[in-house]
Amino acid sequence: MKTVSPVAFVPIDRYTDGESSSEGDLLAVEEPLQIKLQFGQEDQWQENALTITMRTPGHDFELAIGFLLAENIIKTPEDIQIIRYCKKVKEEEKGNVLIVRLSPSLKFDFSLLDRHFFTHSSCGVCGKSAIEAISCEDQPFMPGSPRVKASLLKQLNQMLMNEQTVFKYTGGIHASALLKPTGELLFLREDVGRHNAFDKVVGAAFQENLLPLSDCLVMLSGRVSFELVQKAVRARIPIIAAVGAPSSLAVSLAKEKGITLIGFLKQDRFNIYTGRERVEMD
Amino acid sequence: MKTVSPVAFVPIDRYTDGESSSEGDLLAVEEPLQIKLQFGQEDQWQENALTITMRTPGHDFELAIGFLLAENIIKTPEDIQIIRYCKKVKEEEKGNVLIVRLSPSLKFDFSLLDRHFFTHSSCGVCGKSAIEAISCEDQPFMPGSPRVKASLLKQLNQMLMNEQTVFKYTGGIHASALLKPTGELLFLREDVGRHNAFDKVVGAAFQENLLPLSDCLVMLSGRVSFELVQKAVRARIPIIAAVGAPSSLAVSLAKEKGITLIGFLKQDRFNIYTGRERVEMD
Repeated sequence: MKTVSPVAFVPIDRYTDGESSSEGDLLAVEEPLQIKLQFGQEDQWQENALTITMRTPGHDFELAIGFLLAENIIKTPEDIQIIRYCKKVKEEEKGNVLIVRLSPSLKFDFSLLDRHFFTHSSCGVCGKSAIEAISCEDQPFMPGSPRVKASLLKQLNQMLMNEQTVFKYTGGIHASALLKPTGELLFLREDVGRHNAFDKVVGAAFQENLLPLSDCLVMLSGRVSFELVQKAVRARIPIIAAVGAPSSLAVSLAKEKGITLIGFLKQDRFNIYTGRERVEMD
Repeated sequence: MKTVSPVAFVPIDRYTDGESSSEGDLLAVEEPLQIKLQFGQEDQWQENALTITMRTPGHDFELAIGFLLAENIIKTPEDIQIIRYCKKVKEEEKGNVLIVRLSPSLKFDFSLLDRHFFTHSSCGVCGKSAIEAISCEDQPFMPGSPRVKASLLKQLNQMLMNEQTVFKYTGGIHASALLKPTGELLFLREDVGRHNAFDKVVGAAFQENLLPLSDCLVMLSGRVSFELVQKAVRARIPIIAAVGAPSSLAVSLAKEKGITLIGFLKQDRFNIYTGRERVEMD
């Protein structure tokens, strides 16, 4: 297995206040990861490539697990029999191809996967349908009722900065952190893709059998899209706090599902878009 | 056709310096857009759904065109016969489904589209292969030789902020701007997805028959991923300037293709990762 690092060193020309100098700089690494699925029955495994995502190497098993959860392919740790890197690949691909073998007891139809949330016959191409599709293919969502103090929320931004090791060196990577509403940090993961960083923290919690995460809060370094709220729904996370702004559809989905959504979280201020009842003012 | 707006108004609770107040806030709108392809011959059109992207409504034709260019499906304006919104959809889907009819003279095989850059038999799943795949399915890339002044680069960040109307109201949207290296702004587009904003400016230039964009510079509001450099390669844009950091693979692809890549562009500084010869120091 080749060594993979989340950072890479490159020579650059740095221009500051009219002065130019040749220096070195650390970049966040981006490499493709292919996730393959094995499914079916013992001695008759079928194998299909599920997806390729551009990601920062590290915590790849967690990434794959979080992705499978978000796509509603797996629900419990028993649904996965084996997860491993593929060995039958070229030298330069090693560490970039993962195989997940699903449990033979899991009902699984690969043909239903393609863009599944839009291909329900009842679903159209609009925001309302996208939200309905998540509801109709899912168990009813029972968001937990933890509460979080406003004074804690204001500390989260600095906490994220302190813990982000790759960001410190590169300034160019997203992070997701999973916390207890009391502030205890469970997992923090970084990735060039913000959806990957989210998948990694959920995958990490899944591996420790912590799902559903109905007593947790997720903190995001960037903006909040529909897709990220969808991932919170699947992991049953009731509170999302983000440094950036949410989109309209992210707010609609959070409202529909009873999730608390906080945006523009800085050291002295934040906006509550939905689920105000979970935030305790000081 | 329903009216679509890039912004939506929602009630929020704003918490500032220990004070909480109920207010209204503007969000960037996110809605699905489905792009369908019609291809084949007159009276025998085949129709296939190509992709669904979550985007901010507005400039949808440009988005579709930019996407088709980046995916190497079309190359010239003659490759598109008609582009229109689909009328045979439910009321709530109107404006969210586009049909692009390809010219009958265009050689097109829908079955080759699926993840095409990784399914070349010669391509593996690694950064080097991803870069090679872009080269092997493409015409040789002849990057232009425009030069840009360092003093101009330093003004681009402010220019982007001044021109971003949706960002001004929402604080939550990406932008791409296409400029002449003298600073003349050609197009600026905003979208919740940074890849969509890039597709929109390229699509806008394509509609005015400006491609190849070998005398242009693109300015991006965020980080630079492999995918964004790939889009610049396809549109023949020789200079990429970005507010954020590039990834390792973005730098590798830019270097391979002779593109000038500038990151961390602020009012008083920037980093040149590749193609230093196009930057004139003051």
